[in-house]
Amino acid sequence: AKDSSLSIEALAQKVMGGDRIMLSKAITLIESNAKHHYQKAQDLLNLLLPNAYPSIRIGITGVPGAGKSTFIEEFGYSLCEKGHKVAVLAIDPSSTVSGGSILGDKTRMERLAKHPNAFIRPSPSTGTLGGVHRKTRESMIACEAAGYDIIIVETVGVGQSEVIVRGMVDFFLLLSITGAGDELQGMKKGIMELADAIVVNKADGENKKLAEKAKREYNQILHFLMPATKGWETKAYTCSALHGDGIQELWDTIKLFIEKTKNSGTFTERRQSQIKEWLFAMIRERLENSFFQHEEIKQYLPFIQNAVMEETITVSNAVDTLFQKYQSSLKNG
Amino acid sequence: AKDSSLSIEALAQKVMGGDRIMLSKAITLIESNAKHHYQKAQDLLNLLLPNAYPSIRIGITGVPGAGKSTFIEEFGYSLCEKGHKVAVLAIDPSSTVSGGSILGDKTRMERLAKHPNAFIRPSPSTGTLGGVHRKTRESMIACEAAGYDIIIVETVGVGQSEVIVRGMVDFFLLLSITGAGDELQGMKKGIMELADAIVVNKADGENKKLAEKAKREYNQILHFLMPATKGWETKAYTCSALHGDGIQELWDTIKLFIEKTKNSGTFTERRQSQIKEWLFAMIRERLENSFFQHEEIKQYLPFIQNAVMEETITVSNAVDTLFQKYQSSLKNG
Repeated sequence: AKDSSLSIEALAQKVMGGDRIMLSKAITLIESNAKHHYQKAQDLLNLLLPNAYPSIRIGITGVPGAGKSTFIEEFGYSLCEKGHKVAVLAIDPSSTVSGGSILGDKTRMERLAKHPNAFIRPSPSTGTLGGVHRKTRESMIACEAAGYDIIIVETVGVGQSEVIVRGMVDFFLLLSITGAGDELQGMKKGIMELADAIVVNKADGENKKLAEKAKREYNQILHFLMPATKGWETKAYTCSALHGDGIQELWDTIKLFIEKTKNSGTFTERRQSQIKEWLFAMIRERLENSFFQHEEIKQYLPFIQNAVMEETITVSNAVDTLFQKYQSSLKNG
Repeated sequence: AKDSSLSIEALAQKVMGGDRIMLSKAITLIESNAKHHYQKAQDLLNLLLPNAYPSIRIGITGVPGAGKSTFIEEFGYSLCEKGHKVAVLAIDPSSTVSGGSILGDKTRMERLAKHPNAFIRPSPSTGTLGGVHRKTRESMIACEAAGYDIIIVETVGVGQSEVIVRGMVDFFLLLSITGAGDELQGMKKGIMELADAIVVNKADGENKKLAEKAKREYNQILHFLMPATKGWETKAYTCSALHGDGIQELWDTIKLFIEKTKNSGTFTERRQSQIKEWLFAMIRERLENSFFQHEEIKQYLPFIQNAVMEETITVSNAVDTLFQKYQSSLKNG
């Protein structure tokens, strides 16, 4: 036990020293589902937490084909060139993983990966989205302790993943492209309400006019939606990640956003409410797990659920019955 | 105990016989927060549940001034005249109540209230919205057992009340009016996505043109939203509750909706998933109450929450600490 706690301290020191291989190792430990890794990961995080660098957390989502990796590579590279340290955490629910790294993903952003100021970590989606959530948040802390001041969290739009990522970032960017002309129709329900900026990518060549048109259409719809961030008007922009057009303007927009929200207090409020919501989400998760994974409940719930759906017993009755079984077995167990 | 169980049976018989005063008494019992009423209410509901009439449940919401009571009165009256039995459950979070009835609300729909086929029940919002939810659902069962085949649940748009009502009805109607020309801007976030129909009321006199314009604007926006009900295209309509215009067309729309959703299976699916969600919501509520109202948790949570928000401990640590306290005191208690 003494040895492994020493090695956790050594690992923490290496991470805080900016060692990228050790940071990668730390995230593998944090992401591990192995029970004997849990306490080590917590010990590590407790060492890293006080040293987390104040960062800007940016969430990026977009439909497949929107050019997310080209965009992140171009955007991230330009920030690295300005002297920022950029960590990219990719959440890919469809990814297959071997030993904690995805070769495909590494080569996806090869140019960015080679920059000394960049760190790219494709996080596999093992377990529930809730699990990804928890681990991604803790991975962010590790990156921040390693001195990364810009954290990019990438997500593909599966299930509630955008809502989860929105709940852990300061700025949320929706990457879009032009298509058959009716791309707004195919837009995932509720997604525009989460965004602080909608960026129409591939605004180059013959596509430029269409991209401008899509931008106007987005702005029309945005007009009717509540902004995702208090005091900030979400707008649509165009860019060409391929040619680097619009990247600087977008960064200026994000800097303005950070300045405005820091001045108004919204930035700190959001960070605090995010962490509070995270705490309560984890409490609820733990409560529900202990209930629904209880042997008696697993055994009786299907019958009681059927009785309720067939309206032979009331819902209140059903809940009473389940809790009687649960509580009496907690006392006896 | 024997006497009171007899009287519950007598009450159930009267309710099922269509006695409106007894139905009102039954709902008062259901809504009661008194602990000694809870088991009686459950006994009553268990008697009523197998006899609940298959009804159409319609939720109606709208901004203040949209003319909800005039609309419900006109709509309900026309259904009563067709031979339907119409129960109106009003959820009014701002209402004050004395002895279970609100004089103001009764006179609000005086003409409808006098119809022999109508039953109007203004339900006060005591306790949480979750509480209103549970009781309104159970009050619906009482109305259905009394033979009401159309249940109208009214809500004013406070907090999550529309989402809650959407979760207990078959058809959800959003009542709107024209105003300064930019009414869509003031629309509550996410509310249009819940509706099966948007009805622009007060389409009469000089207002008619504006109402038609608002209808077109709503239809434009609806075009970009996911429909609230699978296989049903939500559209905007106009009506004049004052002159009775558009009421029959709206009823035809609702009948078509019911026919379509019953044929496709969506109607039954929604009812079953609503009751399942209700069951799980109540389980979660019970789990959270037992945790958050626990003395040890009440005492420690504020400190731990602060430590998490100041980032001196990790969220996982905080949850571990809280559950250690909770579980050890459950075993000792």
